[in-house]
Amino acid sequence: MKYGRPSRLTAAIAIVLAACHFTWLGSEQDKSESVAAVLTNTSKPRASSSNPPWNAAVVGAGSWGTTVAKMIAMNTAKLKNWENRVNLQLIDEMVVTDEDLYKLKDALVRTNGTGVIEADSVGSRLSKIINTRHVNAKYLPRVPLPTNIVAEPDMQVAIGDADVIVLGVPDQFVKSSLSVIKHFLKPSARIIVLSKGMEFENNALVPVSEVVTRELGIDGDQVCVLIGANIAIEVAVEKFSESTLGCRRTEDLAWLKPIFEQPFFRIGAVTNVEGPQLCGALKNVIAIGKGLIAGQGASANTISALMRIGMKEMRGIISEFYDVPERVWWESCCFADVITTCLAGRNQHVAEQFARRGGKVSFEMLEAELLNGQRLQGTVTAVPVHDLLVHKRWTKKYPFFEAVYQVVATKAPPGSIFRVLETVPQSDDGL
Amino acid sequence: MKYGRPSRLTAAIAIVLAACHFTWLGSEQDKSESVAAVLTNTSKPRASSSNPPWNAAVVGAGSWGTTVAKMIAMNTAKLKNWENRVNLQLIDEMVVTDEDLYKLKDALVRTNGTGVIEADSVGSRLSKIINTRHVNAKYLPRVPLPTNIVAEPDMQVAIGDADVIVLGVPDQFVKSSLSVIKHFLKPSARIIVLSKGMEFENNALVPVSEVVTRELGIDGDQVCVLIGANIAIEVAVEKFSESTLGCRRTEDLAWLKPIFEQPFFRIGAVTNVEGPQLCGALKNVIAIGKGLIAGQGASANTISALMRIGMKEMRGIISEFYDVPERVWWESCCFADVITTCLAGRNQHVAEQFARRGGKVSFEMLEAELLNGQRLQGTVTAVPVHDLLVHKRWTKKYPFFEAVYQVVATKAPPGSIFRVLETVPQSDDGL
Repeated sequence: MKYGRPSRLTAAIAIVLAACHFTWLGSEQDKSESVAAVLTNTSKPRASSSNPPWNAAVVGAGSWGTTVAKMIAMNTAKLKNWENRVNLQLIDEMVVTDEDLYKLKDALVRTNGTGVIEADSVGSRLSKIINTRHVNAKYLPRVPLPTNIVAEPDMQVAIGDADVIVLGVPDQFVKSSLSVIKHFLKPSARIIVLSKGMEFENNALVPVSEVVTRELGIDGDQVCVLIGANIAIEVAVEKFSESTLGCRRTEDLAWLKPIFEQPFFRIGAVTNVEGPQLCGALKNVIAIGKGLIAGQGASANTISALMRIGMKEMRGIISEFYDVPERVWWESCCFADVITTCLAGRNQHVAEQFARRGGKVSFEMLEAELLNGQRLQGTVTAVPVHDLLVHKRWTKKYPFFEAVYQVVATKAPPGSIFRVLETVPQSDDGL
Repeated sequence: MKYGRPSRLTAAIAIVLAACHFTWLGSEQDKSESVAAVLTNTSKPRASSSNPPWNAAVVGAGSWGTTVAKMIAMNTAKLKNWENRVNLQLIDEMVVTDEDLYKLKDALVRTNGTGVIEADSVGSRLSKIINTRHVNAKYLPRVPLPTNIVAEPDMQVAIGDADVIVLGVPDQFVKSSLSVIKHFLKPSARIIVLSKGMEFENNALVPVSEVVTRELGIDGDQVCVLIGANIAIEVAVEKFSESTLGCRRTEDLAWLKPIFEQPFFRIGAVTNVEGPQLCGALKNVIAIGKGLIAGQGASANTISALMRIGMKEMRGIISEFYDVPERVWWESCCFADVITTCLAGRNQHVAEQFARRGGKVSFEMLEAELLNGQRLQGTVTAVPVHDLLVHKRWTKKYPFFEAVYQVVATKAPPGSIFRVLETVPQSDDGL
């Protein structure tokens, strides 16, 4: 494959950027538009989708997708009923690693005159790095991966035989990935959603699992979630944490839990998929509120009161739409994720700075200054939540979520959060 | 009243100590041993104990008792059905304030020769300071108190007319206070317990409310609790926080909530008294565990997992003995208090240092070094909890609480907490 004539300037930039894993976003993704038949499945799937050995695959090789693939591969290497190999489907980016820098210099010398560089001579395909050096140099550097993870750009090859497909792509790529997955999906396969995203449709909260079910045209029972208070790199280096596996069917929980669980990554299993996903999305709004009061000097007891109120409103809002069993709120996906996100996440961090600077520097500017390319989630989520509360006339019922919106999206001062906390309804037994 | 001949040395010491509120622990407490009749009440109390105007009193003028008295007095000054005056019963210590230092110097000059000092001339009674300067100079300095708080050393005068008595004495003085209160209690009065203490009797957890009920020989419905994620000085200076009022009867909640609630001190009302008290005691063990792993560099997601596991075991242990309604766990007394104590309390602080120093400096020594006279609670509570778990054969059922005991009371290394977290049973739906 040939790229156009690079100027010396471009080459110089490439060398500079290489240190931070400069990437040519490849167009190698095989979208297989020629596949004619769209597989559909309207019959109820069986508890375990086919006869063993079963096969597991992961779609999306970001830090979290790769980390989950690592845990699955550690397990399938030992479990008798599972195929050893775990395919990791990825966009096969060209990555210029430190090693490649030497090659790049050589290439520049060689091509000086023709102005054409062979792409393969100046970088490495991410799939090749994973399959030969067993490390995801771009998204999870320095973490050795099990050798039974096989990076595979071709979706059909990657998931065609999979009984379980872990969907690990970023939220904004979920729909486009599904449009490809759809063509190659085994009718009985289970999809495990890792996304904490959420959509708003017709004034209702719609978890990603619902979008997956609809886009793939499969039964809702086939779509499960794995969501918890997890920071990818911490789990990848085997720091203890917990997560929550949600499947509508108990048989699926029993079947799937063993491929995810590790001593350092304990899995709580629940027969609910909406609670974990929606907590995962809404908790970021609580974290914004926490940052806002922390930035104004709130002490631990005020912060814990805010977290309590935020958790209560979050449960309330979710319960308006879905029947979530009580114990789901106590799992890693809800209780622990609220704590983690309020203690250490990017949302609380930026919101704290926003309050410290008196609300005079916009969230957009702080995001650019403080997050190194990452995006805030709570400020984005607060907006459709507000629209929903207004439409349903719930702004008085959930005043804390509304107050966060007023600060992030209108000109309400950060201090207004305190006044709202003072008027939040308490739930009193029988009063 | 005359004290014995003070040497010049004693006087000098008194002057030095005055800066930190030197106190003669008075023997002025009128224990009224001559009161013959012990009032007993075996009939069911009415919902509100008598006709208005009702009277509220607080026993114990420490920082928290005084803070609660402040909130009650702010309310009774406005509420039509309540007497304005709020008696604050206290041990009438002699306090040497900065002001008194001048008097002390005068007194030394005057008595030089006789060697006898009039006690009143070298210090001030705490009651007099509160009643004239409207500040608790010893236990809540610099916080202006409402003028309708009346400090009163005489128990009979203080509580004889009270329909509500807030019990705000330190845990170790609860029983001795009850033995006095008992003689002057209105038969229909309600007691509001502030204590987060707990006793272990016959291998069961016994909340302080139970001790109060028994010692006073009153009906269990008359004993209520006010417990939350509260730091006295923060509430006293009106920083926003929440608390939980627990009464067995809904009528009592409706009757009593208005005398405690403030915009900066919101009250959740529950018809349960055991849950709040036992969370208040057991949460300190969770905080010790948190400090132990934080001191070994645990990150936010490991810490939130530990808090989740701790909360789950705490609920489990309490539920073995008492039927606590689900929503109590979400109130300030449980959910928020666990967070506050794990974020900022003394227990997590000392435990963190214990781990940082590799377990080589004992908790007793760290307590002396770091707590400025305060005592650790979690290390003390862990011991009878362990005895209970052993006796009931629950050490495998509640491994986290057991693991904390092993570190604080035996020679188990702080790192053992991590290994235990990896083996804690997860509660899986239907598995």
